[in-house]
Amino acid sequence: MHKVPVELGSRRYEILVGRGLLGRLGVECRRVGLQGRCAVITDANVGPRYGEAALASLRAAGFDPLLVSLPAGERAKDLEIAGRCYERLARHRLERKSCVVALGGGVVGDLAGFVAATYLRGLPFVQVPTTLLAQVDSSVGGKTGVNLRQGKNLVGAFWQPRRVLCDLDTLRTLPRREYQSGLAEVIKYGVIYDARLFRRLERNLGRLLRLEPRELAAIVARCCAIKAEVVGQDETETGLRAILNFGHTIGHALEAVSGYGRYLHGEAIAVGQVLAARLSVTRCGLPARDADRIGELLRRAGLPTAARWTAAERRAMLQAMRLDKKVSGGEIRFVLAERIGRVRYGQAVPGAELEALLRPAGASRAGAGPST
Amino acid sequence: MHKVPVELGSRRYEILVGRGLLGRLGVECRRVGLQGRCAVITDANVGPRYGEAALASLRAAGFDPLLVSLPAGERAKDLEIAGRCYERLARHRLERKSCVVALGGGVVGDLAGFVAATYLRGLPFVQVPTTLLAQVDSSVGGKTGVNLRQGKNLVGAFWQPRRVLCDLDTLRTLPRREYQSGLAEVIKYGVIYDARLFRRLERNLGRLLRLEPRELAAIVARCCAIKAEVVGQDETETGLRAILNFGHTIGHALEAVSGYGRYLHGEAIAVGQVLAARLSVTRCGLPARDADRIGELLRRAGLPTAARWTAAERRAMLQAMRLDKKVSGGEIRFVLAERIGRVRYGQAVPGAELEALLRPAGASRAGAGPST
Repeated sequence: MHKVPVELGSRRYEILVGRGLLGRLGVECRRVGLQGRCAVITDANVGPRYGEAALASLRAAGFDPLLVSLPAGERAKDLEIAGRCYERLARHRLERKSCVVALGGGVVGDLAGFVAATYLRGLPFVQVPTTLLAQVDSSVGGKTGVNLRQGKNLVGAFWQPRRVLCDLDTLRTLPRREYQSGLAEVIKYGVIYDARLFRRLERNLGRLLRLEPRELAAIVARCCAIKAEVVGQDETETGLRAILNFGHTIGHALEAVSGYGRYLHGEAIAVGQVLAARLSVTRCGLPARDADRIGELLRRAGLPTAARWTAAERRAMLQAMRLDKKVSGGEIRFVLAERIGRVRYGQAVPGAELEALLRPAGASRAGAGPST
Repeated sequence: MHKVPVELGSRRYEILVGRGLLGRLGVECRRVGLQGRCAVITDANVGPRYGEAALASLRAAGFDPLLVSLPAGERAKDLEIAGRCYERLARHRLERKSCVVALGGGVVGDLAGFVAATYLRGLPFVQVPTTLLAQVDSSVGGKTGVNLRQGKNLVGAFWQPRRVLCDLDTLRTLPRREYQSGLAEVIKYGVIYDARLFRRLERNLGRLLRLEPRELAAIVARCCAIKAEVVGQDETETGLRAILNFGHTIGHALEAVSGYGRYLHGEAIAVGQVLAARLSVTRCGLPARDADRIGELLRRAGLPTAARWTAAERRAMLQAMRLDKKVSGGEIRFVLAERIGRVRYGQAVPGAELEALLRPAGASRAGAGPST
């Protein structure tokens, strides 16, 4: 088992990475001082598979758990659904010392985290991420949120978990496409922070695609450690933390205009990374060969590296980017790479250049052909 | 002008108490480093009276303000209404460096504060409380929230303002009943923390009821200072801060069962203080004479000191108290007074004793007759 500490002063916590962790949920919750009533928030996919194991582990450790099941998919990140969760928590009489457990992927974590952050002005929170994406990304760093019609994650809070259990066994039942989507974030960590990790991925991607336990554990733990390092230096995204958004400005816009569903998050982010790499070549001196390596690794991971959109969709994407939380002084800011393993954040890109980048001709030059 | 610092480390801020402060809103926002777009959240009562002055002051200081008007009254503290505010903020393209100004009473402050705490995972927040209650209580300490059907303030966040402007001129247009409601919290500060303040109130209540500027400024500033001292020692209510809830456990329950509208907050809290004082006599050694002084001062301030409820309402009140955030280990905890100026928090009261206290016969013995 790997243990990754997230150093956030009084809100310090540990991420455990290994096999069989779901069965230890109750024990681990007790270990961080929790007790009494609690709520396990999950969704219609994960609940039937792992809900009972979570409840059993909590009961065995003396907890009185309630299972709350959300609809599957991004539409669960909705204020009205948060409202229904609050009502369930109120009926189960959760108290300030009660805790909320998120059992599922990023959507469950974001929604459950927001509920934990705001019910009774904040309850202790434990994460059991069951997708690769959630394990390496959304379970680290305390971002929680729901979507508005106008954009993703526009409402939310920073709320740190008390503990995170990354049970690698849960990845075995993950649909292939979901697993590959997670690899987009794994590759991102190589690009933004760790050239050695990037080379290891180029070398060992096959092992990762086969879910070889040792390689998987090492990679998940390394990604968590990178994110923890970044978040530890900038908890509330006033600076450095922005580097985690490499590929996300365009990726989020693509998700927004395609209605949160056509692309999985990692797929949209893969397309976003290819376009951000292209911007990096012209604006930051990223060698064209490195931009190609990024596209190639994403492609080998089974991810789309280009997408098509209509002129109306392009305008909607630009509009969505202007609503992005990273906008400052009205200018859209990008994370761009100088080389693999090193990026700069807060890079303004003129609107005209951005529009050209998103033009159909541009998109079709981007990589390995049309996406999913 | 009085300046009251609220010492919360990196979240330190100042409360200004004086006349003509609304006209300085823009200047004061700039002084704490804010700029650009902002939203002034107000309600249907306060907006028509002071909205334009707030906008003019902000515009003169270079801000681009949006006015968002809520329905008047407690029903605005609703998740759906928060949702509508988010949409307005998104359409006005508020950014992370934009700010939210709450212009109104406690309801506006709580809702606007919750919106500020959660939009883009948290925006800077400035309060301009326009009721006595909001000036001495809800604008200090960073509690924000909305209500659920199951209880008041069950959803919310701790979110500190950057600055608070208590403009005493706004109290001149406050309905008499609202002003008196605020006096319930003023009197509470005497009971829980400051016997000298309590005696000053006994002596000078007439001046306060006439809104004599010097007395009013001194009293508002003293109440803010007491709350700031308490909150500074316990920001997130893990201990001492609970003393601020003297009279609130029963008061909140009374508001809940009467549907948030029959009683103003201060009126319910006045009844709650009389009953808490009665419990204090039997359980904490509060001299019966001091319990009488508390009831008498509340009565002189024009506040109800007893209320009537049916047996069904009594059961509903007990039920509401069990949902209160101060419940721990299933037991309802009270703040009780040893003497005027000194209280103890976390006092468990057996259910039977509580039920007896709320019996009609008990209620009619409580004070100066039927309420409102």
